[in-house]
Amino acid sequence: MSAPTADPVDTTAEVTADVTHVVTELATAAKRASRTLGTLTTAQKNAVLLAAADAIDAAADTVLAANAEDVQRAEAAGTEASLVDRLRLTADRVAGITGGLRQVAALPDPIGAVLSGKTLPNGLELRQVRVPLGVVGFVYEARPNVTVDGFGISFKSGNAVLLRGSSSAVSSNAALVTVLRGVLEEHRIDPNVVSLLPSDTRESVTALIQARGLVDVVIPRGGAGLISAVVTNATVPTIETGSGNCHIFVHRDADVDVATRIILNAKTRRPSVCNTVETVLIDSGIADEALAPITSALQAQGVVIHGEEPGMEPATEDDWHREYLSLDIALKVVDDIDAAIDHIAAYSTGHTEAIITKSLAAANEFTSRVDAAAVMVNASTAFTDGEQFGFGAEIGISTQKLHARGPMGLPELTSTKWLVWGDGQIRPA
Amino acid sequence: MSAPTADPVDTTAEVTADVTHVVTELATAAKRASRTLGTLTTAQKNAVLLAAADAIDAAADTVLAANAEDVQRAEAAGTEASLVDRLRLTADRVAGITGGLRQVAALPDPIGAVLSGKTLPNGLELRQVRVPLGVVGFVYEARPNVTVDGFGISFKSGNAVLLRGSSSAVSSNAALVTVLRGVLEEHRIDPNVVSLLPSDTRESVTALIQARGLVDVVIPRGGAGLISAVVTNATVPTIETGSGNCHIFVHRDADVDVATRIILNAKTRRPSVCNTVETVLIDSGIADEALAPITSALQAQGVVIHGEEPGMEPATEDDWHREYLSLDIALKVVDDIDAAIDHIAAYSTGHTEAIITKSLAAANEFTSRVDAAAVMVNASTAFTDGEQFGFGAEIGISTQKLHARGPMGLPELTSTKWLVWGDGQIRPA
Repeated sequence: MSAPTADPVDTTAEVTADVTHVVTELATAAKRASRTLGTLTTAQKNAVLLAAADAIDAAADTVLAANAEDVQRAEAAGTEASLVDRLRLTADRVAGITGGLRQVAALPDPIGAVLSGKTLPNGLELRQVRVPLGVVGFVYEARPNVTVDGFGISFKSGNAVLLRGSSSAVSSNAALVTVLRGVLEEHRIDPNVVSLLPSDTRESVTALIQARGLVDVVIPRGGAGLISAVVTNATVPTIETGSGNCHIFVHRDADVDVATRIILNAKTRRPSVCNTVETVLIDSGIADEALAPITSALQAQGVVIHGEEPGMEPATEDDWHREYLSLDIALKVVDDIDAAIDHIAAYSTGHTEAIITKSLAAANEFTSRVDAAAVMVNASTAFTDGEQFGFGAEIGISTQKLHARGPMGLPELTSTKWLVWGDGQIRPA
Repeated sequence: MSAPTADPVDTTAEVTADVTHVVTELATAAKRASRTLGTLTTAQKNAVLLAAADAIDAAADTVLAANAEDVQRAEAAGTEASLVDRLRLTADRVAGITGGLRQVAALPDPIGAVLSGKTLPNGLELRQVRVPLGVVGFVYEARPNVTVDGFGISFKSGNAVLLRGSSSAVSSNAALVTVLRGVLEEHRIDPNVVSLLPSDTRESVTALIQARGLVDVVIPRGGAGLISAVVTNATVPTIETGSGNCHIFVHRDADVDVATRIILNAKTRRPSVCNTVETVLIDSGIADEALAPITSALQAQGVVIHGEEPGMEPATEDDWHREYLSLDIALKVVDDIDAAIDHIAAYSTGHTEAIITKSLAAANEFTSRVDAAAVMVNASTAFTDGEQFGFGAEIGISTQKLHARGPMGLPELTSTKWLVWGDGQIRPA
């Protein structure tokens, strides 16, 4: 970065140009490095991932010392305790990070799978094969584990990765990436397969999400503000993850005990994650019976209910939109299943929606008409999760409809290409 | 649209706000209409498509009269003859349009296919099923057939469609959409499943590509300028189609006769389409033998060669980037296969790349290292085409890597959702 000058306007312009230049250089190097990644065998990739896990274990003291600097700086700046906790690494957390790399090594390699194929009447042989995307960008917040996760899943799927972490984790991230690049060099792989972007200015995010032709996809992992900023301003393709205003609809034919147990689980198990239920809709045909047990069970667990019934926090329009991510929940009595489906269509973020019912007709109607990444019958919304679905790697949950929808596994970090083999075929006029 | 007032600035602002409002209303109505489309059976959808074909056949005179107005207006404005020809409908072309609808009716329905599924250890049953995207937007140029094609493929795949055609085709497009909406109403389907957007201002394109939450994908079909403008300014997801700077690399172990025949076919069959070859790369190890027959065969067909050899138009950097779409071709002698792959990596638009060789090792190296939607061995680039690949519907050729790559069929206009059926499962803490 250039030194500050006397003129603040010039300085800004200069710094911006500088950061954009740095990001463009790193992206160009990543693109170049990515071109050979697709030709590595699964065995070669797994050897690197296992060596990376061993190397981080061996460098745990260095990584923890770097993390201590980040934590100290965050505490000195008066950062909230919960954020400092997310930033903090321990020997156990480092072991979790390297365990994650070993898990990714054990996953099936998506690259090279033949998805479809045929021989045309003229003898041309077509195969549609899975190939890497090329260069993946991650923009994420405090947790340093995403630095290693992001490398692991990208590398296994044959992609180079550009990591734009939080400035609060800069020392931890730098220590981890240094270890990763060292392992790549030992394996004679271009270390630009993984690079850390400058995190001291927003300009590096802008440069990353506008590097058309160099970056093939950017995946933001973090709060709704981060995700929205990235998706709205990007000119490279993005995958929108995580925002979940999830509903549970208690149908008039529900088993009230089942409904109560599922709502409690979906709200209180881990309130801060995206598959948490945020609004309960109760069919007017069962409200007399269901309202009291559900509300008292929630309140007994300290959940604040925002609704229109007596004894609740009065709900405003805003409550139907809210992703509380806390021990708060919105609750509304609706006329019937049509009204529930309309409410969900109006307020859902398309993450996970559930119906509790004993009626097969109602279950079929709800699952066919509700538009979301996951639609559930008599189950907790907490099950929308890559590990629960058996994907084995944590890449996030896509709430968009193109390319990937729902929990993402390694195949969602790939593209395809058509191979067409012939012996001189030309196309008639 | 409001009447012009004395103040040009106010007028513009008013018209813009007006058009944006109109597009938003149509998109909202399309979104609402789309919500029931996913529940139509294949038989119901096919009945509508066949009825639409019959209705357009029956209304052919009205459609041709409307088209005559467009043609007259274009000719009066001095429009280029080739553009007027693209705009013009004839009885034969109308028959082609309705034949296309009947073809789409005959295609397999992608909706409802179960792509994967499993039962989790806790008894939860997971199914990943194909569902419509919701609302698809098409932005396209003069050809009125895209109006009906766009409706047909969207409707068959369960999507509502917003059509933003060319202002030069406004009368033809309006006549066709009126027929389509009439057929929908006869079948008691919300006619907002298909709407024509205002085409007299660019603002309607902007409003369409920024209607986040209402429009699920926009697909531009037209020239490179249109596609680039849509993709760069959109905040809704887009699918980039068509731009093809395709290369044929004549490897040192090529059969020169095969190379010549394929290059001629790929350049002269239909020079104006995206799978046309635009640059020929010749391995220095075969240049002495291959250069003369290839160049003389091309020149005999009236092809202008831009290159560095004697007797060619001198090539500049620009020629390696050009998608000529005409009887022009760039030609370069390269050192070897590595140089060819590097040149392609630098200049390719990722559409179709081909190698001509008898060497299996060279064919494998080229197909594994070249990054494009289609990579061919000893075949004409003209084969990259939905009909040739057997997809039966013309949606365009995606040159992006996310969601769809290469020729697109009906499945590329769909998304998926996870259905999760249980009997009261909750997730342990």
